[in-house]
Amino acid sequence: MPGMALPHSKARPAAPAARPAINRERLLADLNAVSRIGIGDRGSVTRLVFSVTELRSRQLLVHLMTQAGLKVHVDRIGNIFGRLEGADGPAVLAGSHLDSVVHGGKFDGPVGVIGALEAVRTIKESGVALPCPVEAVCFVGEESSRFGFSTLGSSLVAGQVKMKDLTNAVDARGTKLGEVLAGLGVDGDSLSGLKRDPKTIKAYLELHIEQGPVLEAKGKKIGVVTAIAAPTRLRVIFTGQADHSGTTPMDMRKDALAAAANLIAYVEQAARENASMDKGRVVGTVGAIKVDPGVINAIPGKVELAVDIRSVTGKAKDRVARAVEGRAKEIAAERDMKVDILPIRSEEPVDLDAGLIGVIRDICEEKKIAYEVMPSGAGHDAMQIAKIAPAGMIFIPSKKGISHSPLEWTDPDEICLGAEILLDAMMRVAYGEN
Amino acid sequence: MPGMALPHSKARPAAPAARPAINRERLLADLNAVSRIGIGDRGSVTRLVFSVTELRSRQLLVHLMTQAGLKVHVDRIGNIFGRLEGADGPAVLAGSHLDSVVHGGKFDGPVGVIGALEAVRTIKESGVALPCPVEAVCFVGEESSRFGFSTLGSSLVAGQVKMKDLTNAVDARGTKLGEVLAGLGVDGDSLSGLKRDPKTIKAYLELHIEQGPVLEAKGKKIGVVTAIAAPTRLRVIFTGQADHSGTTPMDMRKDALAAAANLIAYVEQAARENASMDKGRVVGTVGAIKVDPGVINAIPGKVELAVDIRSVTGKAKDRVARAVEGRAKEIAAERDMKVDILPIRSEEPVDLDAGLIGVIRDICEEKKIAYEVMPSGAGHDAMQIAKIAPAGMIFIPSKKGISHSPLEWTDPDEICLGAEILLDAMMRVAYGEN
Repeated sequence: MPGMALPHSKARPAAPAARPAINRERLLADLNAVSRIGIGDRGSVTRLVFSVTELRSRQLLVHLMTQAGLKVHVDRIGNIFGRLEGADGPAVLAGSHLDSVVHGGKFDGPVGVIGALEAVRTIKESGVALPCPVEAVCFVGEESSRFGFSTLGSSLVAGQVKMKDLTNAVDARGTKLGEVLAGLGVDGDSLSGLKRDPKTIKAYLELHIEQGPVLEAKGKKIGVVTAIAAPTRLRVIFTGQADHSGTTPMDMRKDALAAAANLIAYVEQAARENASMDKGRVVGTVGAIKVDPGVINAIPGKVELAVDIRSVTGKAKDRVARAVEGRAKEIAAERDMKVDILPIRSEEPVDLDAGLIGVIRDICEEKKIAYEVMPSGAGHDAMQIAKIAPAGMIFIPSKKGISHSPLEWTDPDEICLGAEILLDAMMRVAYGEN
Repeated sequence: MPGMALPHSKARPAAPAARPAINRERLLADLNAVSRIGIGDRGSVTRLVFSVTELRSRQLLVHLMTQAGLKVHVDRIGNIFGRLEGADGPAVLAGSHLDSVVHGGKFDGPVGVIGALEAVRTIKESGVALPCPVEAVCFVGEESSRFGFSTLGSSLVAGQVKMKDLTNAVDARGTKLGEVLAGLGVDGDSLSGLKRDPKTIKAYLELHIEQGPVLEAKGKKIGVVTAIAAPTRLRVIFTGQADHSGTTPMDMRKDALAAAANLIAYVEQAARENASMDKGRVVGTVGAIKVDPGVINAIPGKVELAVDIRSVTGKAKDRVARAVEGRAKEIAAERDMKVDILPIRSEEPVDLDAGLIGVIRDICEEKKIAYEVMPSGAGHDAMQIAKIAPAGMIFIPSKKGISHSPLEWTDPDEICLGAEILLDAMMRVAYGEN
């Protein structure tokens, strides 16, 4: 996506001399209020999309937006837009999501939603005249935990959803997403109309926790996100021969786990060789393995691996995925075994907007904030909105890189710093200062 | 153990000019009758020790022995001895077990028990005068499937059991072996008295299916067993760090599965390097693996491997086990991870009697039967009896090497050939022709 070109306006209000300051106490109090919805064991948070707790968190947000005097619009799937009007033209949007994984943390999503709300209400309170509208946004169903369907709300806004896939998606209890929507009075067929006219969006900004260890390890406060990596996922099944571990000589074995071990080592090696930024910052993981029969006194006859390969460029991802497939076939051939390689999923990485990357970097430079220009290894709503408008992301550190866990943590100072930078970036984009 | 020295007897009966022929139909019919006890899905056989089906199979054997006119003795644990008297001196024993694993095959055990019965009753019918008694034996509980305790009956006969271990052994339902014995009216404390006086045993011979692929692959009919391998079993636990598979760069990972993959590959390599007979015919297997958290989008934080290393010499087994432990520590150190190595079990390999090996080989040579001199990779009752008397084993082929499965198969011709050789070997040993 090229750098953002802003429309020129003759009668635009002038930018104020200084940015208004956010209300730290209010931001942290509202974040806390959200995190109490769906709280459970050891402080874990569970707000699965369309569950009672998730609906309650959205209701709280509508309340907070109304209280702040924003114009609230909830679309048919449940995305929430809290708008502050400006002179004219397309709006600057900022937001994230409120839904969570099972037993997740407090910050994955809400930091970006409440951060955007805090930025917009701070602008409103400051009384500055805006050259264009600004909106705080909450997208529905960013996590895939319930229906195996990620970035649901933002995909609909970006016009990226095949309606049949959506309504047929099923949760762990066998409930179809289409039935859930019908229960809430939503006509699934009407959802394709949710695609938002790109002409109404000047830019989209998302504040999010890193969910990785890089910022903390490098002692940086802010991540300026350049691209969002996407995964290729494969299931690799080696079929050898289950035999007695004592009576089968080494040269008469077809040990499927020994074959799989070679591939696991190769996935790590190939990803390491392509780990640098110029080679696509590839990561490769074998996260799950099934061994049959899986007992100490039997040679494994069948082993199934779940392989996850990600990169910030489709080219690098495909290159490594093809190399892994090739090596799997080689290993099987060397050992006279069968191998099946089943693609689970393959998505395209997304570049974020060069103009917005520049804005965020400039702010960090001016304020002398230690920052890291970096890709996002995880998916976010920004990768959907990037398909219809300039999109940018601001990362704040995750303690020990932990996320999707009750141990997820970011210091309050860092959350507030992230919200301040988000506010600054929204205003610079609104006033065309980038 | 040194070659067997036979006591010299002045008034011993002369050996008959030819061996009496076994009754093939009777042998196969009785084997079939045993295999119908505990038969289930797809022809699988389940006769767990002290289950109703296992007790019925022993009752059938007592009936068959009585019918054959043998003197039947059942000891307190349930081992069965069917004796045909001879002139004097210690007896030549032959036998195996009738209990099975869960969903096992028809031949693992019964071939040796019914084969021995057929040999003894054939000798009886032939009317030859024996220089010493012969006995067909059924040992209780050779399989460890129910109580995790293998070669129960033969260990007691050999005086190799710690009574406390035995009575405290527990099955999957939580029932103690001591309670099972009490239920059957057996006083656990009296079992140490089952140790048989070594002076009463001239030799022990066991006919058994190979449970491995060697004989079939080499086109041999008979395996002359030289030694019984024993396992060293280890649990190896690598502890790294569970992280998000997308957001954690390759150089910031502690992937416990990648570490484990290196060890799995090393176990195979080390065993291959020590696979030759002069290096101890080592086999090494990783049969089971547990990965935590075990999902496609998380780097494995903890992996547990079950390692099984076997050899026909304790020296080779220990050498490879030490090398595997060393490599595990090296891998953990290279990756700045923790590794725990927990010994599960370590047993000593057993050499079989050189004199008996010679007898069985001589028979094959004279009858021009294709045979293989080979070790046993699996454990058998013979390895216990070898501790108090000269012991030998005769293997017959297993189709595709499969055992502990309803697919276990040996051709009837091969079963009958095995029983004929057993009969011949028993008579040669009885008449001191070795």
